[in-house]
Amino acid sequence: METARHLQNCVDRNETTSGPRINRIEEANLAMNTRRRSRKGAGREAKLAARTQAALPITAWIDRKIPYFEVLNEEGLALIEENAETVLAEIGIEFREFPAALRLFKEAGADVDGERVRFPRGLCRSIIQSSAPREYCQHARNPERSTMIGGDRTVLVPAYGSPFVLDLDKGRRYATLQDFQNFVKLTYMSPGLHHAGGTLCEPVDLPVNKRHLDMVYNHIKLSDKPFMGSVTAAERAQDSVEMAKIVFGDEFATNNTVMTSLINANSPLTFDATMLGAATVYAENMQATIISPFLLAGAMSPVTVAGTATQILAEALAGMAYIQLVRPGAPVVFGTFAAAISMQSGAPTFGTPEQNLIIFVAASLARRLNVPFRTGGGLGASKMADAQAGYEAANTLQTSALAGVNFMLHTAGWLEGGLAMSYEKFIMDADQANMIAVLLGGIDLSENGQALDALHEVGPGNHFLGAAHTQANFETAFYRSTIADNSSFEQWQKDGSLDTAARANTQWKKMLADYEAPVLDQAIDEALQAFIADKKAAQPDQDY
Amino acid sequence: METARHLQNCVDRNETTSGPRINRIEEANLAMNTRRRSRKGAGREAKLAARTQAALPITAWIDRKIPYFEVLNEEGLALIEENAETVLAEIGIEFREFPAALRLFKEAGADVDGERVRFPRGLCRSIIQSSAPREYCQHARNPERSTMIGGDRTVLVPAYGSPFVLDLDKGRRYATLQDFQNFVKLTYMSPGLHHAGGTLCEPVDLPVNKRHLDMVYNHIKLSDKPFMGSVTAAERAQDSVEMAKIVFGDEFATNNTVMTSLINANSPLTFDATMLGAATVYAENMQATIISPFLLAGAMSPVTVAGTATQILAEALAGMAYIQLVRPGAPVVFGTFAAAISMQSGAPTFGTPEQNLIIFVAASLARRLNVPFRTGGGLGASKMADAQAGYEAANTLQTSALAGVNFMLHTAGWLEGGLAMSYEKFIMDADQANMIAVLLGGIDLSENGQALDALHEVGPGNHFLGAAHTQANFETAFYRSTIADNSSFEQWQKDGSLDTAARANTQWKKMLADYEAPVLDQAIDEALQAFIADKKAAQPDQDY
Repeated sequence: METARHLQNCVDRNETTSGPRINRIEEANLAMNTRRRSRKGAGREAKLAARTQAALPITAWIDRKIPYFEVLNEEGLALIEENAETVLAEIGIEFREFPAALRLFKEAGADVDGERVRFPRGLCRSIIQSSAPREYCQHARNPERSTMIGGDRTVLVPAYGSPFVLDLDKGRRYATLQDFQNFVKLTYMSPGLHHAGGTLCEPVDLPVNKRHLDMVYNHIKLSDKPFMGSVTAAERAQDSVEMAKIVFGDEFATNNTVMTSLINANSPLTFDATMLGAATVYAENMQATIISPFLLAGAMSPVTVAGTATQILAEALAGMAYIQLVRPGAPVVFGTFAAAISMQSGAPTFGTPEQNLIIFVAASLARRLNVPFRTGGGLGASKMADAQAGYEAANTLQTSALAGVNFMLHTAGWLEGGLAMSYEKFIMDADQANMIAVLLGGIDLSENGQALDALHEVGPGNHFLGAAHTQANFETAFYRSTIADNSSFEQWQKDGSLDTAARANTQWKKMLADYEAPVLDQAIDEALQAFIADKKAAQPDQDY
Repeated sequence: METARHLQNCVDRNETTSGPRINRIEEANLAMNTRRRSRKGAGREAKLAARTQAALPITAWIDRKIPYFEVLNEEGLALIEENAETVLAEIGIEFREFPAALRLFKEAGADVDGERVRFPRGLCRSIIQSSAPREYCQHARNPERSTMIGGDRTVLVPAYGSPFVLDLDKGRRYATLQDFQNFVKLTYMSPGLHHAGGTLCEPVDLPVNKRHLDMVYNHIKLSDKPFMGSVTAAERAQDSVEMAKIVFGDEFATNNTVMTSLINANSPLTFDATMLGAATVYAENMQATIISPFLLAGAMSPVTVAGTATQILAEALAGMAYIQLVRPGAPVVFGTFAAAISMQSGAPTFGTPEQNLIIFVAASLARRLNVPFRTGGGLGASKMADAQAGYEAANTLQTSALAGVNFMLHTAGWLEGGLAMSYEKFIMDADQANMIAVLLGGIDLSENGQALDALHEVGPGNHFLGAAHTQANFETAFYRSTIADNSSFEQWQKDGSLDTAARANTQWKKMLADYEAPVLDQAIDEALQAFIADKKAAQPDQDY
């Protein structure tokens, strides 16, 4: 009931955001605000409201208004579903060093043999379909930024997990906390990115066992978009939950979703204790998890599209069923990350047609299961933000958008197979993110959209620039790229003959210079800092 | 009857090309060979066959095995069709300085008022549907390269019409005949490009009124792929036809399609005498024309997607109907070239979502009309082959492929809004062309494709590299990019830290160095040269 009401609040809010949206914070997510107000006092909502009015335009997600591209027909999809059930029944999935999962699956009717779990046909699907939500609201500390994940909605999220960063000034280097903070800020300021993401880059200057505290804190402090929690250990997931409780209130943060976190399968057909531990913490606390087979096809899955799609479905079914056994109703996302290896060198490749076909199939399979779907991103193997990076990223972004991604991780910044987060490419991808919103927004078939008046007014051989219809629409007509140079060759020369990366370099620096932090209630900030200080003092630094 | 048989020959040939294809030349297009043999002697077929065995693998077109992406439903498409009929009936189309067109339309039942032609609702559609072929075979002088245009097939064609060329060594400069020859060679050597195109770049070192002779000659001499004829004047179209007759034989070249040429509408809602003159020559000789509204939306069409699609349909209907009135059954292609102007600067923009939506709609409209469809290309406004060029090109290429393009003009080389043909970008786009073939080839659902054996063999936690299924398939598994660098950062550094353009620069030079011309019968060559010499001698050089 409560959940349903939040969902409706969340939806209502976005549906009205096409008009002016000043002060809608007060109307939105009343339940959450009420809880927070009672705990922290009411002053901060007013401040928040005042602050947000001056911020960039916000769209908390994209409402899809175009069809999905279905690459396979019913028969083809049913064949892959049938094969995935065969894999689950005959080969099974290993859940390593995590007896709790084995126990739950045994109780649910699976055949447990050591750490290998074999599932009667249809068991995982029926567990998922009996309780996993089709879509869910992930609340943000700024209710205007609370987002809906699933259904006909698309949420774009920056890249995740790079140990390196790259920019034109300092080249490629290990990422630091300052880089992480920079990407939180850039994401906060990018209207096409609806979600702050998680490990935007690895702050490798901080100890492995403590850096999650700084990442979660900086997401909360420097941004007000929804974010992801830590998954590198169960206790770090628990820390993420504790910090969320400080921000959202104890009860709210364990009965509503305020984080969506990334659980990779250890493909093929294996889940390990680390990921299962983190996933369990999140599910117990009603936090969303993305169960993501992470495949380099040819090495970690078969060398065919259909075989890889089969494995993806089997792994996702098993992982999502586990989440529903831990806490029925906890949001869970069907994830897909599929690169293909070069059969010559073993190197991962991106933006290629087989991967795109896998994405199309996986999206269809997730829709048939009726759960949210994660894939995509501006993926690529290029070492720099050059033409290869552009082709690769666009190929995967377009495919994912048309396939029907709900949660597009790695939308912006990704380079070098995910090893490097690029400041310049982030700017380029954020522009593509804006374009995806226009594409998915579809075609206006209103009378104004049909523009018959304009055609009548202008007639053969004339131009439309001065037409009344053009004048009435030109401010909103046609997406305006934030990074493309469309000027003449001569003008471009006059402007310094800059390539896209050079223009992007100027842009991100200006954005960081212009950045203003959203207001965070001082009491919350202090409580978070105290929590982190306690945690850091309680154990020595570790590098694992 | 004759046409139907050629069509079947053409189709049969490609359908068997998945196996070995040595000596299939002798089987293919028998009717044409018989004609040619009787005129020129039989020796040359043997030489041709011997030569082709050593050449690159040939696929004469792509057979599409995936669905079309339909962005609008029946109701939306019917609305645009209805509106286009309104435009044709109430506003009409101007056919300027070309009384023959006015006469034909009047006879067909249109209302002719000066140069303005208004069409009773449904007239153009019914004229087209009563005689225009759904698909046609464009014969090449090498029958292995004869291609099918229309239906579920896709033919990829290089860029067209740039006055400038660009490479990393010599920068941007006016194109010359040598550049033109280079791009004929590069296209000939690119297996993903099925068609040689036409004005690959403008050889501006030659007089305007004579350069078409050199272009057509070099297409015939340096390549054996199907090509496009001149459209810049009726007499130049006639010269193209005469030269085709020398190659294919008089009767064959006027009863079968051996050229597909580009007729742009003078949007909005106008066709001019130049284009109509060329179109008439081609139609009378059974040569194919692409009737292409060429729009910068916002200037030459309304600022909305639906309004622009309406205008495109109206213009294409009128132009295609004209062709069918000239010669019922002459192949005609529904063309669409739509950029959008920046509403700030008036500059054309490419790779943006509104243009992609227009492409999706236009493809659906062409399918409903049941004629071949031309759109697409690796379009872009970038002045160099950088990241912007990559994003822009990939966005349009992917869209056109999923939309269902039959004839993809501008697939490779395009930069700077079409003003420059780039040697380096040509290499990058040709790689994308290969990828499109894989994407449209769809998903192998055979037992081998399903790969259940591989999943059984490998099981949880292991890798697939040594699996029997992987070993059996690795040679054909996964598209191998010809230009992407997928190696590690360290290896890439060791290789010189080259960007994509620098790698492409090496490639096109190597291709040109490796180029070997296909055999051209000496008698044909001499006849062509004599024809050209006569033509050149008969009039002074002109710059218009």
